[in-house]
Amino acid sequence: MACLLIVAHGSRREASNDEVRELVSKVRKVATDFSSVEAGFLELAEPLIPDGIRNAIASGHKHVVVLPYFLSAGRHVTEDIPADIQSVQKDFPDIKIELAPYVGAADGIVNLLLDQANS
Amino acid sequence: MACLLIVAHGSRREASNDEVRELVSKVRKVATDFSSVEAGFLELAEPLIPDGIRNAIASGHKHVVVLPYFLSAGRHVTEDIPADIQSVQKDFPDIKIELAPYVGAADGIVNLLLDQANS
Repeated sequence: MACLLIVAHGSRREASNDEVRELVSKVRKVATDFSSVEAGFLELAEPLIPDGIRNAIASGHKHVVVLPYFLSAGRHVTEDIPADIQSVQKDFPDIKIELAPYVGAADGIVNLLLDQANS
Repeated sequence: MACLLIVAHGSRREASNDEVRELVSKVRKVATDFSSVEAGFLELAEPLIPDGIRNAIASGHKHVVVLPYFLSAGRHVTEDIPADIQSVQKDFPDIKIELAPYVGAADGIVNLLLDQANS
């Protein structure tokens, strides 16, 4: 089964990085389609995205799904994260490294916003 | 009924701001509990949050719900947005201006991530 790597920007504020790690733990508990669920960061926190992918490969995964925990399709989503993936893919051509759509692109985001507005 | 003001960071990349505005349009179409749903920005795009709140008041709303379109509880969510609200509240003590929980705090975010990972 695949590894799901949820990747966030990373912050100088360690509490923000821990918030991501806690969310990843929650996803791990319910993610029946993935044998592992880990956090990765674009910068400022560890593991960095390429290291997160390499860790997944080192632990035996042949398939890694990289999911951007971002709300908009800025440069980080359209350029930086794909470049991080490519930097590992070239060393491991037989490993399937997929980029999932970013959070802000989810159909469910509209209802999630309404739930928050009414909570 | 209340105005829902969905507030994002704002970007130099206008396409990112338009992405927020498009999402707000989608929410508007299904938000039966709000008489208007508008976008606001912390910086770099218009309307800025205080202007968004003032616009809602000017159009007759007595209740404005400010919903941070942010994934983590960083300084923007914990300090900057509350300060923007306070800057308007002091001029309009009889208007109810509420801060809704930010997107990353939503219970539904775990399942939304799983949906994205499997899409």
